[in-house]
Amino acid sequence: MLNTLIVGASGYTGAELALYLNRHPQMNITALAVSAQSVDAGKRISDLHPQLKGIIELPVQPLTDVAEAAKGVDVVFLATDHKVSHDLAPQFLAAGCTVFDLSGAFRVQDAEFYNRYYGFEHQHADLLSQAVYGLAEWQADNIRQAQLIAVPGCYPTASQLALKPLVEGGLLNPEQWPVIDATSGVSGAGRKASMTNSFCEVSLQPYGIFNHRHHPEIATHLGIPVIFTPHLGNFPRGILATITCRLQPGVTAQDVAEAYHNAYHDKPLVRLYEKGVPALKSVVGLPFCDIGFAVQGEHLIVVAAEDNLLKGAAAQAVQCMNIRFGFPETQSLL
Amino acid sequence: MLNTLIVGASGYTGAELALYLNRHPQMNITALAVSAQSVDAGKRISDLHPQLKGIIELPVQPLTDVAEAAKGVDVVFLATDHKVSHDLAPQFLAAGCTVFDLSGAFRVQDAEFYNRYYGFEHQHADLLSQAVYGLAEWQADNIRQAQLIAVPGCYPTASQLALKPLVEGGLLNPEQWPVIDATSGVSGAGRKASMTNSFCEVSLQPYGIFNHRHHPEIATHLGIPVIFTPHLGNFPRGILATITCRLQPGVTAQDVAEAYHNAYHDKPLVRLYEKGVPALKSVVGLPFCDIGFAVQGEHLIVVAAEDNLLKGAAAQAVQCMNIRFGFPETQSLL
Amino acid sequence: MLNTLIVGASGYTGAELALYLNRHPQMNITALAVSAQSVDAGKRISDLHPQLKGIIELPVQPLTDVAEAAKGVDVVFLATDHKVSHDLAPQFLAAGCTVFDLSGAFRVQDAEFYNRYYGFEHQHADLLSQAVYGLAEWQADNIRQAQLIAVPGCYPTASQLALKPLVEGGLLNPEQWPVIDATSGVSGAGRKASMTNSFCEVSLQPYGIFNHRHHPEIATHLGIPVIFTPHLGNFPRGILATITCRLQPGVTAQDVAEAYHNAYHDKPLVRLYEKGVPALKSVVGLPFCDIGFAVQGEHLIVVAAEDNLLKGAAAQAVQCMNIRFGFPETQSLL
Amino acid sequence: MLNTLIVGASGYTGAELALYLNRHPQMNITALAVSAQSVDAGKRISDLHPQLKGIIELPVQPLTDVAEAAKGVDVVFLATDHKVSHDLAPQFLAAGCTVFDLSGAFRVQDAEFYNRYYGFEHQHADLLSQAVYGLAEWQADNIRQAQLIAVPGCYPTASQLALKPLVEGGLLNPEQWPVIDATSGVSGAGRKASMTNSFCEVSLQPYGIFNHRHHPEIATHLGIPVIFTPHLGNFPRGILATITCRLQPGVTAQDVAEAYHNAYHDKPLVRLYEKGVPALKSVVGLPFCDIGFAVQGEHLIVVAAEDNLLKGAAAQAVQCMNIRFGFPETQSLL
Repeated sequence: MLNTLIVGASGYTGAELALYLNRHPQMNITALAVSAQSVDAGKRISDLHPQLKGIIELPVQPLTDVAEAAKGVDVVFLATDHKVSHDLAPQFLAAGCTVFDLSGAFRVQDAEFYNRYYGFEHQHADLLSQAVYGLAEWQADNIRQAQLIAVPGCYPTASQLALKPLVEGGLLNPEQWPVIDATSGVSGAGRKASMTNSFCEVSLQPYGIFNHRHHPEIATHLGIPVIFTPHLGNFPRGILATITCRLQPGVTAQDVAEAYHNAYHDKPLVRLYEKGVPALKSVVGLPFCDIGFAVQGEHLIVVAAEDNLLKGAAAQAVQCMNIRFGFPETQSLL
Repeated sequence: MLNTLIVGASGYTGAELALYLNRHPQMNITALAVSAQSVDAGKRISDLHPQLKGIIELPVQPLTDVAEAAKGVDVVFLATDHKVSHDLAPQFLAAGCTVFDLSGAFRVQDAEFYNRYYGFEHQHADLLSQAVYGLAEWQADNIRQAQLIAVPGCYPTASQLALKPLVEGGLLNPEQWPVIDATSGVSGAGRKASMTNSFCEVSLQPYGIFNHRHHPEIATHLGIPVIFTPHLGNFPRGILATITCRLQPGVTAQDVAEAYHNAYHDKPLVRLYEKGVPALKSVVGLPFCDIGFAVQGEHLIVVAAEDNLLKGAAAQAVQCMNIRFGFPETQSLL
Repeated sequence: MLNTLIVGASGYTGAELALYLNRHPQMNITALAVSAQSVDAGKRISDLHPQLKGIIELPVQPLTDVAEAAKGVDVVFLATDHKVSHDLAPQFLAAGCTVFDLSGAFRVQDAEFYNRYYGFEHQHADLLSQAVYGLAEWQADNIRQAQLIAVPGCYPTASQLALKPLVEGGLLNPEQWPVIDATSGVSGAGRKASMTNSFCEVSLQPYGIFNHRHHPEIATHLGIPVIFTPHLGNFPRGILATITCRLQPGVTAQDVAEAYHNAYHDKPLVRLYEKGVPALKSVVGLPFCDIGFAVQGEHLIVVAAEDNLLKGAAAQAVQCMNIRFGFPETQSLL
Repeated sequence: MLNTLIVGASGYTGAELALYLNRHPQMNITALAVSAQSVDAGKRISDLHPQLKGIIELPVQPLTDVAEAAKGVDVVFLATDHKVSHDLAPQFLAAGCTVFDLSGAFRVQDAEFYNRYYGFEHQHADLLSQAVYGLAEWQADNIRQAQLIAVPGCYPTASQLALKPLVEGGLLNPEQWPVIDATSGVSGAGRKASMTNSFCEVSLQPYGIFNHRHHPEIATHLGIPVIFTPHLGNFPRGILATITCRLQPGVTAQDVAEAYHNAYHDKPLVRLYEKGVPALKSVVGLPFCDIGFAVQGEHLIVVAAEDNLLKGAAAQAVQCMNIRFGFPETQSLL
């Protein structure tokens, strides 16, 4: 039994983590926490997320003393804002915890990136180089050794799972950048009051064009330039990414299918479509990333779908934890 | 040509008022305004409500000097918070304007009501007694004489239009209170950031049980007790009210039909259903209140539907104005 | 290990049953079936319900020979049309199976009811009297003995769980019928093409006023008359029922709370609210029925919420099965 | 006063046409019609589209004798299936009517196209060459002379309005095809019962990849190859197209802005965004196509939004009619 602490349990991702870990046979949730300033500090998680009533009723405690909070804790999940994760992770690591950070604070090994996209000066260059990027299907060996796992963002997970087999296999024509048009549910913006998330204000619309923080995360880890255009969709959960690529001359649909098969045939949380492409509804509430594609001549369209809070956040974090500690990869996820 | 000023043009109702009045052949919008503290002060209305782009592009000016703002203005629409309306209306009346107030500030002639339901001490008992309640189908004669028209709330409009013919006709059994279960779109809560209105938080749920401020407004103006349970619905606009009543012994479906016919056959914005009951979609975006009913023995179920921002707010305000100034009752509304 | 067959696995309820039973440690799904005429016969369940891909991939076989299909099967779930269940249940019973029927074919012990509400002549009066009504929280002792369990409909489950403690406790004033206004997600109409269910046609609206087949099911099993008005809501899943009652003189909120506590404090799938009332989102995707209430004088408003496909169908069927065979009541449901 | 007949008035586009033409001061609706086989034949349009109650109540008559139906009719709108339009248009033309066809039957001057994409053999090559493609902002001169106007499809309107100024100005790098990812509301599939349109089945998903009939319509009229991927969105109305292009070396954002300004500064139904890009909500219920863009280096992203039933169908048809007969271009549309 491992003892675990979830920080940021008031948010949507935190609630999903609590659900998964609460039913995990090897995990014991010792506490739920939020930052000391949070208006939710002291409330029961089931008052914040009433669907949890009768399932998990722990209070969400203000995190005032990290050393105290870390006592006896083996595993910490940080479902916190980027700057908060940046500040907390080193303290929990120092206390000997294994840290799964769901923020962007340790995903990109370029300190300048944080100034530009997250608005703070990164203070822990050493941790940036130690952190393992938790794209579970591609980093299992590294995850098994890691003490700090930077769980990828929601858009980057879908985009990279779709593109990485093509990049690794050299199937893409480098003269044309893949075009990633992706649409996310509103929960991607977090649990908070804002005009943008206000019910009557939400409708399908692009945002962050040429300027979204997930763009460099995707491009850096893939190792190729891409064009990434995120959209806000009028649904609570899920991401659907439609990715238009140009293949190297001579590459066939069969080659593409083989690349995906080789990459994922033994990966339980990626579901490949033999024909057709996924719809959003197929993945909402589930820990999968679904991938389908179509080829016409040199043109390839790949569609990837996932639940942004699950394979795009909480489920992938637990998947990484399962890998890290040698539990079955889908334990408590299915 | 009448000159008109809309105060509170940044809100959803304000935007609908601007649309209606902009195309009204007898009205000239001299200015749009918001309270001086509003974060929207100075912005163009089409930046706040992008659907208005190319139709009406006026700035939403901070209202700092009422006397100045009232100069040359014949008609003022207050689509403002209750307390703001309470404070502004007397000043615009003193400047000689006719005032259509869409807030609750002058709807109920019981000053104590404001302490309890709106949280402020009412200072203008004289205006409470002068104000005409703008339930247009029932108050036309009074509206024609009024300088201050208190336009009814969204729930009260649907509820009263449905019940008033029955009450006036003495068709209801007084031993059983009508049960009004009504569901409103999220725009009823106004244009603002809040957790309650946040996209992922909205789902069908009752609120304000036994304690909603529209309850006394309905009961007072109908003159009978009712049970009123409002619900938040997961849609942006519209109200549907299902009202369960008990008829006096001997009252028939035919009697009910006649009561409605007599009340509304010559009223252009109430649509009566000969069979069946309305659905929400039939009224969204339109200035109507639709009414249908069914009878079984002594039991009567009436269903009323309207767009909460239109017949429940902006359209009724313009309808009152049309009546007040002798314009065709549906001018600019259809 | 019990062998089980699900008939009607192509529908929404069938898919939920498959998910629950697939992960149930004491159950082995031997086959999925649909009626021989179904256009879905022969397809994989994961092609009909793509969310099941990678979880359960069995074909949905045409049911041509019941005796053959029943061989070696201990438990049959009928998620079929009423007339189909009526015809199939006797055959599976004759083959020695325990049958959980999710249709209306055996819920009311009045053969005339079926002519009027379901449009067929009931041929099995003997089974009507043997069938146990599977309102799990109230029928556990009978369920343990039963070979045919008629699992209640979605509206009746929410309505009865909310009202039965009040009726049993004699808390309601018999002179006034409880008013049940309930709203269901579109999945309640089943998985089929129809104009009524067409995306652009759906909006909040009442239907079946004074004439819905669930009305007599509710009234008969409660033993009191009620007024039941169902509504179609613009959401896929869930039911919220707002029930307005009149209490006997002298009955207090405390009495009501005690009645609920006594009925449900040891029932794992009913969640009582100490304050406030449930929202729809709290139960979607979960096997609970949530209940909250408010009292003012003699007036009581009870709100019950459930997922129509789960506690209103599949979860309750599995709950009944768990009770019937002595498994933990929430096995595989949470 | 021109007399007009609307064929296909039972559909969503037909209803919008009826609304526009009913309030058009120069138009007189002589009749509404549907094909003789339609289940809706004989019903009132306000029973099919209850929002029209009290506004337009004409019956939707079965079209049995075209010559009879055409008597005294100046203008015919065909909001009918492609094959029906193909069959009817010649007859109405022969009767001297001016025909606005909203189907695909006369949009592409390549008879082979109809075999492949619409499944019928085109019989009227002469009309294909006479028909004017009604992309109103670009074809006004031709429209003024035309007797048969083929009103563009919904996706093609948004796509071409966005791309045509760039193509005409030679701003695009021909080595890279524009990538059009577009999402349409469910009403785009027409008013009919189908599993695909069923409320619970709808979620964001691509369809018709590399194979949608609007692809050749777009490419042919633009004169360049494109990659077009349509998506079904979980909303009733509207289209949002995100278009990723590569600019010729040296082309700047300023050049793009000028191309749009030159094309549309005097066009009342195209709204250009000086900064930012449109959201779907800005155009739903309105006759506009909104266009915004962003440039980074050689990469250009254009976003176009319209209501698929309005600028993508009914509003553009009326706009064409206004142009054809010399009425103000936006008459009855705003």
